[in-house]
Amino acid sequence: MLAWVAAAEAALEASGAAIRPYFRTGTLADDKSDESPVTVADRKAEQVLRAALLAAFPDCGIIGEEFPPHRPDQKYTWVIDPIDGTRAFITGRTTFCTLLGLLEYGVPVLGFIDQPITRERFWGGRGVPASFTGGFGGKMGTRQNVTLAGAEFSATAPEMFTPAQMARLDRLKGAAKRVYWGGDAYSYGLLALGQIDVVAECSLKPWDWAALAPVVEAAGGVVTDWQGRKLKLGVTEGDVVATANAALHAEALAALG
Amino acid sequence: MLAWVAAAEAALEASGAAIRPYFRTGTLADDKSDESPVTVADRKAEQVLRAALLAAFPDCGIIGEEFPPHRPDQKYTWVIDPIDGTRAFITGRTTFCTLLGLLEYGVPVLGFIDQPITRERFWGGRGVPASFTGGFGGKMGTRQNVTLAGAEFSATAPEMFTPAQMARLDRLKGAAKRVYWGGDAYSYGLLALGQIDVVAECSLKPWDWAALAPVVEAAGGVVTDWQGRKLKLGVTEGDVVATANAALHAEALAALG
Repeated sequence: MLAWVAAAEAALEASGAAIRPYFRTGTLADDKSDESPVTVADRKAEQVLRAALLAAFPDCGIIGEEFPPHRPDQKYTWVIDPIDGTRAFITGRTTFCTLLGLLEYGVPVLGFIDQPITRERFWGGRGVPASFTGGFGGKMGTRQNVTLAGAEFSATAPEMFTPAQMARLDRLKGAAKRVYWGGDAYSYGLLALGQIDVVAECSLKPWDWAALAPVVEAAGGVVTDWQGRKLKLGVTEGDVVATANAALHAEALAALG
Repeated sequence: MLAWVAAAEAALEASGAAIRPYFRTGTLADDKSDESPVTVADRKAEQVLRAALLAAFPDCGIIGEEFPPHRPDQKYTWVIDPIDGTRAFITGRTTFCTLLGLLEYGVPVLGFIDQPITRERFWGGRGVPASFTGGFGGKMGTRQNVTLAGAEFSATAPEMFTPAQMARLDRLKGAAKRVYWGGDAYSYGLLALGQIDVVAECSLKPWDWAALAPVVEAAGGVVTDWQGRKLKLGVTEGDVVATANAALHAEALAALG
């Protein structure tokens, strides 16, 4: 697995360098143009990641947000979201992330959450200890003793939930200690650092969730869909709940109903 | 005004040094304890700011979140929020800010938005050009040509609005191009950088808003309450709307009704 880690880290160095020139460039994204900064940065970063990963592992598959899948039926497939948190990127926030996950037969086994502006990176997976680099402090490890009544809850935006999903979510966040909206994939990194305890979201695509589960689980947390099933390509429908420990996870699933 | 700026910058260097050791320390805030990291950091930072500002200007008044007012009837009064965005601080996010505003007869004339972890600082005021230091890029100046239909809207959390306020806000954010929840006072800095265009919030205290208006206005924006009145101690009731330009502000006030 260490060769995968080394290749992923090298690829993320290159994608970060591709993204940084487009951050806070002043020209906001324009939906009518294919040449907005976020679109250009998205595409360039995914191209860089694909090229680097295929050079290192010619036999792997690749699924990415911006381009068609490349042999996604391979035993090992990389899943790429070059800029997760487009709105954050557009508005100059350092909570967007580059997400890179590795699937084995559709099951995420290695993940990277990379913030190329603050240069923070969270990663971990099967046989790969939870790891974090960055200059703002923090160390990997979820809160093992927190219960739902003491939990910090976070989700990116109310708009990602249908009314039916929001009714279920209301029970969960109503039982938590505090709620913080916003944060994008960066929130899962903060969960791995033991700073927050529950993230529940919907409408996630494979490139949104593939990287997250291995990072959170390597740090001691639990990630499933809202039915309690482990995340897997073709099974996961976009609803994800990540928590700091197994007992808290059971509480969260019970609250979601 | 330059002496005020120099004193404020020196004071913020000291408060940042007081806050940093408590960020992401692993022990989360506990409402039942007066010794949570956020409480300790809050108090220490405000004490440091008060001492530095009173040493530089013995005749000024001081209003702060954590301690009783000190001669708040002075012609010049500093207004301090040592940690604006407590939830952000608790959850390890770099969107909390130290806010420092200077009132002249209750009217904000100079403001600082300081992020001590990323070491970004936005400031400006009467006779003080809009200024920004930080390592992530961006330059001061609001978007002068954006209309509401093209505007990026942001607010910290849906929970800060009453149902009646939310009904008014729904018209505003419904007319904007995109919505981003989260961000705390840092959002006003991003507005000054031309990254977002409208922030509308409620339930703000004087220490929340005093620093924001001078920064945004120095950068070319407009800040009033939801009735269109300039912010002033004793007048402002906690509802604030900040926009990138005067025409957009008129649109925003009309949408708020």
